[in-house]
Amino acid sequence: MRRFIVGVMGPGDTTDQETLENARILGRLIAERGWVVLSGGRDCGVMKAVNEGAKKVPGSLTVGILPSAESRPSPHVDIVIVTDMGNGRNNINVLSSDIVVACGRGGPGTVSEIALALKNRKSVILLRADSSARSFLQDLAPGRVFWADSPTEVIDLIQGFVP
Amino acid sequence: MRRFIVGVMGPGDTTDQETLENARILGRLIAERGWVVLSGGRDCGVMKAVNEGAKKVPGSLTVGILPSAESRPSPHVDIVIVTDMGNGRNNINVLSSDIVVACGRGGPGTVSEIALALKNRKSVILLRADSSARSFLQDLAPGRVFWADSPTEVIDLIQGFVP
Amino acid sequence: MRRFIVGVMGPGDTTDQETLENARILGRLIAERGWVVLSGGRDCGVMKAVNEGAKKVPGSLTVGILPSAESRPSPHVDIVIVTDMGNGRNNINVLSSDIVVACGRGGPGTVSEIALALKNRKSVILLRADSSARSFLQDLAPGRVFWADSPTEVIDLIQGFVP
Amino acid sequence: MRRFIVGVMGPGDTTDQETLENARILGRLIAERGWVVLSGGRDCGVMKAVNEGAKKVPGSLTVGILPSAESRPSPHVDIVIVTDMGNGRNNINVLSSDIVVACGRGGPGTVSEIALALKNRKSVILLRADSSARSFLQDLAPGRVFWADSPTEVIDLIQGFVP
Repeated sequence: MRRFIVGVMGPGDTTDQETLENARILGRLIAERGWVVLSGGRDCGVMKAVNEGAKKVPGSLTVGILPSAESRPSPHVDIVIVTDMGNGRNNINVLSSDIVVACGRGGPGTVSEIALALKNRKSVILLRADSSARSFLQDLAPGRVFWADSPTEVIDLIQGFVP
Repeated sequence: MRRFIVGVMGPGDTTDQETLENARILGRLIAERGWVVLSGGRDCGVMKAVNEGAKKVPGSLTVGILPSAESRPSPHVDIVIVTDMGNGRNNINVLSSDIVVACGRGGPGTVSEIALALKNRKSVILLRADSSARSFLQDLAPGRVFWADSPTEVIDLIQGFVP
Repeated sequence: MRRFIVGVMGPGDTTDQETLENARILGRLIAERGWVVLSGGRDCGVMKAVNEGAKKVPGSLTVGILPSAESRPSPHVDIVIVTDMGNGRNNINVLSSDIVVACGRGGPGTVSEIALALKNRKSVILLRADSSARSFLQDLAPGRVFWADSPTEVIDLIQGFVP
Repeated sequence: MRRFIVGVMGPGDTTDQETLENARILGRLIAERGWVVLSGGRDCGVMKAVNEGAKKVPGSLTVGILPSAESRPSPHVDIVIVTDMGNGRNNINVLSSDIVVACGRGGPGTVSEIALALKNRKSVILLRADSSARSFLQDLAPGRVFWADSPTEVIDLIQGFVP
């Protein structure tokens, strides 16, 4: 009964078209498999794109963990969880995800989510992060940081985590 | 797109049959209207009963905000949010609810959720709380604490809060 | 080495002179015994008064747990802890206190702190709460809610909790 | 009146003697300047060492932000703040620090604190992190990540942040 949740993290302020397009495709592919998309829930950047992609799929379900009651949620989030915890909500994002995907070249917020995921013994898939991020983060938790070049590779990796 | 969420709070350790039966009926009635049931998510007491009731309804959706990664969620919760915040998660429960219902004679945990809901400018419906609770809590936030004698009365009151 | 901490809770928006004067006296008496005053840290109401009172005492120590990085702390708080958790910080206030004192007729915020304290198995002293609050809260956790008519009575009660 | 707080982060499970000795020296130097040492508060690794060092100094003050009510605090922590938030408390650690120092080669927990500090617009000093960490983290927030080879260099850098 408990749904399988994929947390998708990434910068809220990026304008990189490849990253945003990857997030949209990833959202759609996750939803097509019947998994839930969980994100930081705001109406910008990767959060906006991944939810947009997911909601192209009939019957899809998206969850957004908002930092504050004042934050504007993406209109493509079905279930809005309001934490009023600012960046403290990042720990909830990763604890609630069965697997965490970091989409694109993340800033400090995304890196905090990756590190918190690893600290909480979760696995993380990096989708086209740059290579210095890759080697730094893989050293942090050997065997639990994966690398993918495309959204379909992410999906293939996630399959290994579905119970 | 954003779903309307009814938070149902109540004791996790009650054995009062009327309270548990009311929670089950309430869960079913909320789900029948297409609203989401949100609770503390654990597999006991009012949390267990309200989710059981809701999942009798095809297409229903239940969200549980777990206190800890170690807490056992009710098997009737679709979306498990893990906070690892103990009772600190009570503030998230009420912030994420469009309206809060307290079911039965609550202990300190339920009272903390009612008080946090009122502090955050939410409205609360008391379902068969005792009369001393009723008068104490209504004095705390005049005009925002409602009283109901049955699950159907709760539903009638909630209708006034649906956008 | 670990200091004994008295959490003093109460309304931030009260103008009741008796309550504010009691908070000032209480802060001074706590500090005179070498105990630490912990509060919600803001520059208003009971929080302001209790810290003012404590800092009349040379060598005193005051801790304030601020709801947000934007909140203005009382200038009489030595150690400012910034949570960015809004009312979610109330659980931290009570968890960090060896004993909790509620000063005056509290609103929903104070009641949430009392209830969270009791849920977390702490004891609470009510200083001149009204009688309906007294009976309601004492019923919530028999044997752990105490009543005092004056700051000196509060201090006498606290003595019983010092290790 | 508000005390200047230096947050010292680092691994709880290290046995690297250089890292632990640096933490002890750093704690002493911070305390000698009259600043407050803030840490994760537990009785192990860098947290234990930095508090030990600080408490060699008469009149020093140490604050520990514990993850859980069950965690054992270092006996050298004066003010124990209990959050019951697990790794979610890392955001509070950095928000409450005027400046953050990461001591030694940190694991995921330390990296999450560095990233959260940067996300919250704080500055971070790395004390003998390895060079891949240095370049990765400096890229995350240009101009706000500093590097020091010794505890005295850390102190020199901190001087620039004292109001």
